[in-house]
Amino acid sequence: MDSVRVTNSVDTVGTENGQVGTIGDGYVAAVDLGGTKILAAVFGPDGQIAARAKKSTGKDHAPSTVIDRIAGCVRDAAADAGVAAMELRAVGLGAPGVCDVDAGVVKIAPNLDWIDVPLRAELQDRLSVPVALNNDVRVAVIAEHAVGAGRGVANMIGVWPGTGLGGGLILGGHLYTGTAGMAGEIGHTTVLVGGPKCGCGGRGHLEALASRTGIVREIARRVKKGDKTLLTRYAGKDVTSATSGDLAKAWSKGDKLVTRVLDRAAEYLATGIASLANLLNPDLVVLGGGVIEALGDPYVERVASLVKEQPLATSTGTVRVVRSALGDDAGITGAAIIARRVANVA
Amino acid sequence: MDSVRVTNSVDTVGTENGQVGTIGDGYVAAVDLGGTKILAAVFGPDGQIAARAKKSTGKDHAPSTVIDRIAGCVRDAAADAGVAAMELRAVGLGAPGVCDVDAGVVKIAPNLDWIDVPLRAELQDRLSVPVALNNDVRVAVIAEHAVGAGRGVANMIGVWPGTGLGGGLILGGHLYTGTAGMAGEIGHTTVLVGGPKCGCGGRGHLEALASRTGIVREIARRVKKGDKTLLTRYAGKDVTSATSGDLAKAWSKGDKLVTRVLDRAAEYLATGIASLANLLNPDLVVLGGGVIEALGDPYVERVASLVKEQPLATSTGTVRVVRSALGDDAGITGAAIIARRVANVA
Repeated sequence: MDSVRVTNSVDTVGTENGQVGTIGDGYVAAVDLGGTKILAAVFGPDGQIAARAKKSTGKDHAPSTVIDRIAGCVRDAAADAGVAAMELRAVGLGAPGVCDVDAGVVKIAPNLDWIDVPLRAELQDRLSVPVALNNDVRVAVIAEHAVGAGRGVANMIGVWPGTGLGGGLILGGHLYTGTAGMAGEIGHTTVLVGGPKCGCGGRGHLEALASRTGIVREIARRVKKGDKTLLTRYAGKDVTSATSGDLAKAWSKGDKLVTRVLDRAAEYLATGIASLANLLNPDLVVLGGGVIEALGDPYVERVASLVKEQPLATSTGTVRVVRSALGDDAGITGAAIIARRVANVA
Repeated sequence: MDSVRVTNSVDTVGTENGQVGTIGDGYVAAVDLGGTKILAAVFGPDGQIAARAKKSTGKDHAPSTVIDRIAGCVRDAAADAGVAAMELRAVGLGAPGVCDVDAGVVKIAPNLDWIDVPLRAELQDRLSVPVALNNDVRVAVIAEHAVGAGRGVANMIGVWPGTGLGGGLILGGHLYTGTAGMAGEIGHTTVLVGGPKCGCGGRGHLEALASRTGIVREIARRVKKGDKTLLTRYAGKDVTSATSGDLAKAWSKGDKLVTRVLDRAAEYLATGIASLANLLNPDLVVLGGGVIEALGDPYVERVASLVKEQPLATSTGTVRVVRSALGDDAGITGAAIIARRVANVA
C-alpha cells in the first residue's frame, strides 16, 4: 500500500532546505504586487534582504503603466543594494489574482482590473532578467512552508483573509497547483448557498463572508439598519472603507457590532477550514493576510478552537491551526524563493 | 518553476498501466463491504473475474460476526473459482467508513455501528492471506482512475452520492490520502451553514443535501406538509425507505415533488463540485454511487451543466464532469487493484 501514500513524504527540493538563498549565488529581487502598493526587495547571496523599495501602484492600472512602476521599484531596490538591475539573477513576483504559472500570465486580477496580462514576458523585457510569477498568496504559502510556520510539514493549507481571501495548498511537501496552475482558490468555495455575493459573481463564497471586504460590508448593512459602531469614528460614515487596523481597534475596545460580525466571520472561516480538513486531512493550517495580522493571536485562537468543535473529529481534531510566522514579509520571502528556483534553472 | 508542478505528472506505478491483474500471477479476491450486503469476487491471473459470491451483511453487526461472513463470502467465491482460499495471493477490501489505511483499521463506519475495528488483522487471521483495506469509495475511485473513466488523468475527483456521499482524490496520478489516510471526505464539506443535520453531527454538509438519505428526508418533510408523490406508492407511507431505484422511477414519470427535490440536490452537488474545482483545479470529476447509477446520464448531464455556470470559469469551465465507467463494479475492481498491490509487495 506504500505507493498510495507517496504524497506524505516531504521533499524539500526547490525549497532549499528551509533557506531562501543558500543555493546559487548572486542577488535576486522579490516583488509583492498589490492593488494599492508595490513592495520590492533585493536578497543577497546570504539569503538576507539587502535593500527594500516601495511605490504606490498608482491610480492608472493600465498594465504597461503598472509594469513600468514594478520595474522602477526593482531598479530602486537594486540601486540601494549596490547592484545593477541587469546583474540580478532573477526576479520573483507575487500577483493579486489568478495566474497561469506556466505561461507567466495573470488571468484575472480584480483589484487591478486585469485580464490576461502577460506579466512575466513584459517584466522580462523591461529588466532583461528571468522572471518567475505566481499568485501572491501562493508565494506567501511557499514561504511559510519553506522557512515559516510549516517547515518540514507534508500537508499544509494556507488561508489568507485580507481584502479578498486567498489560499495555497502544500500537498506531499510541494505546492499543489492543479491542472492549469490555478488550484488553491479557497476563497471561492461555497459555505453558504444563496449567501452574500462574492466579487467573482458567486454567492456565499468564503471570501464574501470572511474577508475584510465581506466583514465591512456586513457591518455597513447593519449600520444602515441603525446599529451603532466605533468604526464610523475611525473610518467615517462609509464603514466599507474601514481597514483591518480599524477593525482591530474597534474590536479591542469591545465594540459590540464589530465583535458580533467578527465572531460570525470566525465561524464561517472555521467551517471552511473544517471542510478543508475533512477533504484534505492536512497536518497544519496556517492563517495569514491582512485581517489576521491586524486581529492577531486571539482571533487565530478563536478560529482554531471552532475548527476543533466541528466533525469529523478524525481530521478536524488532529489538524493544527496556527498563525503565519513571517507576517507581512511572507509575500516578499516567497517571491525570493521562486526567484531563486528560476535562477538555479536558468 | 518545474519543481512546483510535480503533481501534474501521471505515474501509474501501482495501477499497473491500466490493468487490474497483469503484474504478478495467481488469484486475488476483492470484497465490497456494504451495510446490507457483502460482495466478493475472485480475479484470475488474466485480470478477469473468475467467480463471484454475495452474502447479506446480516442484522447482527458485531464485528466478529460480520468478519466471519466476509471470510465465508471470500471462501465461497474462491471455491467457485476452483482455488482454495489459502492459495489467494491477497484480499482487497473496500469498507463503508473512515479507514486508517496504514493501520488497517476502520475508524468509524456509521452503517455498521463500528468504531476502531482492526478489520485487516481480523480478516488476515481468518484467511491466512494478506489483506489490503481502504474506504469503499476510495477503492472505486482508484478503479475509475486505473481502468475506468479517468485513465491517464493527472488530477481527478470522484464524488459518490449513495446512502451517504463519499469521495476520493487522485492528485498527480495517485490517490491522495492526507496525513492520516483520511482525505477525501467530500460528503463532509459544508455548503450550507446551518443547513440540515448530517449523520456525522455537522450541518449543511454535502452528504446531508445530495445523498439518497438527504434527498428522501427532504421529500418526507414535504410529504408531511401535504405534498403528494408517487414515492408513497413505491416505498410506502414512510418515504425515507425509498431506494435510489424508487427515486428514478418517480423521476422518470415526472413526479413533481421528486423532480423538485432532485433538482435542488443537483444544484447542491454542482455547488460542491464547483468549490472542489476552484480548490483543486482538476481535469476531471467522476460521478458514481447508487444515486448516479439509478438516475443515469440525464442527472449527470444536469450536474455537469450547473457546474459550468458557476464562477470561477477558469476552473469550473475547464473541468470535465462525467459518469463512472465501471458502474456497480467500480468497488470490486478497485478492491482487486489494492489486493494486487499487496500481492506484489508481499
